[in-house]
Amino acid sequence: MESDERYMWMALDLARKGWGKTSPNPMVGAVLVKDGEVVGTGFHHRAGEPHAEVIALREAGEKARGATLYTNLEPCSHFGRTPPCTDALIAAGVRKVVMATTDPNPMISGKGAARLKEAGIKVKSGVLEEKARRLNEAFFKYITTGIPFVVAKTAMTLDGKIATHTGKSRWITGEKSRNFVHRLRSRCDGIMVGINTVLCDDPLLNVRLEGEEHNPLRIIVDSRARLPLEATVVKTARQYRTILATTALAPEGKLSALRSSGVEVMVLPDKKEKVDLYALMQALGKREVSALLVEGGGNLNYALLEQNLIDKLYCFVAPLLFGGKDAPTPLEGEGIEEPAQSWVVENIEIKQLEQDLLIIGYPSRREKVVHRSGGRTGRNIEPATLL
Amino acid sequence: MESDERYMWMALDLARKGWGKTSPNPMVGAVLVKDGEVVGTGFHHRAGEPHAEVIALREAGEKARGATLYTNLEPCSHFGRTPPCTDALIAAGVRKVVMATTDPNPMISGKGAARLKEAGIKVKSGVLEEKARRLNEAFFKYITTGIPFVVAKTAMTLDGKIATHTGKSRWITGEKSRNFVHRLRSRCDGIMVGINTVLCDDPLLNVRLEGEEHNPLRIIVDSRARLPLEATVVKTARQYRTILATTALAPEGKLSALRSSGVEVMVLPDKKEKVDLYALMQALGKREVSALLVEGGGNLNYALLEQNLIDKLYCFVAPLLFGGKDAPTPLEGEGIEEPAQSWVVENIEIKQLEQDLLIIGYPSRREKVVHRSGGRTGRNIEPATLL
Repeated sequence: MESDERYMWMALDLARKGWGKTSPNPMVGAVLVKDGEVVGTGFHHRAGEPHAEVIALREAGEKARGATLYTNLEPCSHFGRTPPCTDALIAAGVRKVVMATTDPNPMISGKGAARLKEAGIKVKSGVLEEKARRLNEAFFKYITTGIPFVVAKTAMTLDGKIATHTGKSRWITGEKSRNFVHRLRSRCDGIMVGINTVLCDDPLLNVRLEGEEHNPLRIIVDSRARLPLEATVVKTARQYRTILATTALAPEGKLSALRSSGVEVMVLPDKKEKVDLYALMQALGKREVSALLVEGGGNLNYALLEQNLIDKLYCFVAPLLFGGKDAPTPLEGEGIEEPAQSWVVENIEIKQLEQDLLIIGYPSRREKVVHRSGGRTGRNIEPATLL
Repeated sequence: MESDERYMWMALDLARKGWGKTSPNPMVGAVLVKDGEVVGTGFHHRAGEPHAEVIALREAGEKARGATLYTNLEPCSHFGRTPPCTDALIAAGVRKVVMATTDPNPMISGKGAARLKEAGIKVKSGVLEEKARRLNEAFFKYITTGIPFVVAKTAMTLDGKIATHTGKSRWITGEKSRNFVHRLRSRCDGIMVGINTVLCDDPLLNVRLEGEEHNPLRIIVDSRARLPLEATVVKTARQYRTILATTALAPEGKLSALRSSGVEVMVLPDKKEKVDLYALMQALGKREVSALLVEGGGNLNYALLEQNLIDKLYCFVAPLLFGGKDAPTPLEGEGIEEPAQSWVVENIEIKQLEQDLLIIGYPSRREKVVHRSGGRTGRNIEPATLL
């Protein structure tokens, strides 16, 4: 392996240590190398805390002078929650900076690199760029669009059912899959469900993992505020932050009662009497929800997909058969008329979790699909990130 | 590897060469070994032609004297389409017979071994037994029950749809998967579909593989003979044998017209105004259909599953999303009420065919599932046979 790539892998591995903690910031790792020796390493732990480069510089001390910095993202040149890293790198006498990607934010992209070059530092960009983009895929979407990176999780039987025809879904997947979902939750800023899922399953929507204290914001999409006051999400609203995303169609009295229970009520514009999902995404973006996990059901999933609001899909398939013409499926709504209009899930990766299969990919409308290497979809041979 | 196992693998590999050709007979391979040297090999090519043992004996000639025979199935001791193999083995002076399984037919099981022992030949049984049973799984079911081994094939999107809500299903899977289905068809004695599939897709239901001339019997399940005279299956009925499985509820005039077009009409008892599927299976068993491929749709699939008539499942999952509350799914019907009542698909094997996934397994009603090694299902690490 080329040595630039080797050190960039180190930086990526370091960056990954901040998983689920850095939002709305990206995960960043930094490695300082001098005369073939690693003299300092660092990663960004969480928003507000020092950037990776600064931690690596501190570790290196005087050895930073003349060293090369490897980092997966362009160093910042502006005052944000912390002072600019470019200034720290210049002051420390770093000789060269190798980065995987420039900053995705169009307002500042390239500025850090320019600042470094002005100071006489050599800059190289594009090393393991694809991997760096994949690692911070949620951040890249969020910072360029202002709306969250949306991950939809579904769990179905081998005959395509997410519940029996009576609405029972406990359990379709096995313990290992359910544990995986809790890890997924812990790495998101928000979890969203439709009101039907609450009425059917009465879920808690928290993270149940040993040692994990981060619980994402819970968002219930419920245009008419049908959410019962005795629902588990309402009864636990003082413990876990909870938003009811509703419309002016909801009765004001009910909204007051929910507010009194600790639920934050977000009244949004409606679209055909349903919550305008794009407006909701913008509102969540303003709340710094950069990664949002959607756990269905089929109506919410389809409404999001139709508006191209689903970025990534985690489909669990369990080796069970339920049958039932009226049993619910992962995507409901009206659906397409012709297979040629379908969405294609690209860059598929497959995992086996005990008896279950997990299929991970990126949905895109068929007419937009870029045909790579002659196939209908590309295939990602790299391990996907957990988001 | 133990030498018994090594030679048994050879016998199994030989047996496999008869795939799709030997029905209603099993696939059998035979290896004659003398002083560590293979002196004769054979496999059963097709029903009516010589058995594997006889071919191996012919090749070995005088060298068979004192040799050991390896074969995956107990040699026959009765006159069937060919004379008994036991007599040929005794006459040739074979010293020992190693078999994987005894004959599954309870009427004759063990008789071949007994006859050999009487003649002073050593007999060993049970070498690679599981593998031998799996290889001839269709034969084992058929010979012990008189009804076909039923393989159901489904193809769904990642959101559990087998067609759009307008009934369009061309194409869900890619070319490699469709080619696989043609191989599957070529190895079966019959292909069965429900009338709705004919009305929706107007399929040809033949085998489209280069060099393959075997076309299975086509069976349309159609309790009221709604099958249109202009359907492709009817128009090609003189080319490919076709059975309409119907009931006394069908209008006699229509049945006459279908008969005149070359369709064989099978009037069966009904069960709640639908074709009695168990009676149909018995009728097909009498026609020497030992392996039957069912290609749906969801109503026929569920009706068969409910009666525990599906032995094996081939589920293709394509990376597409259709959406649609009313789009059809692999299993329709009423369905179960509680997840605990579900069928579990056991001994799962997963293949990737270009962009598609293929999940192969054996459905069984949950209450009957034997818990192996603590898991909810066992897992087959052997490559499954194509049936």
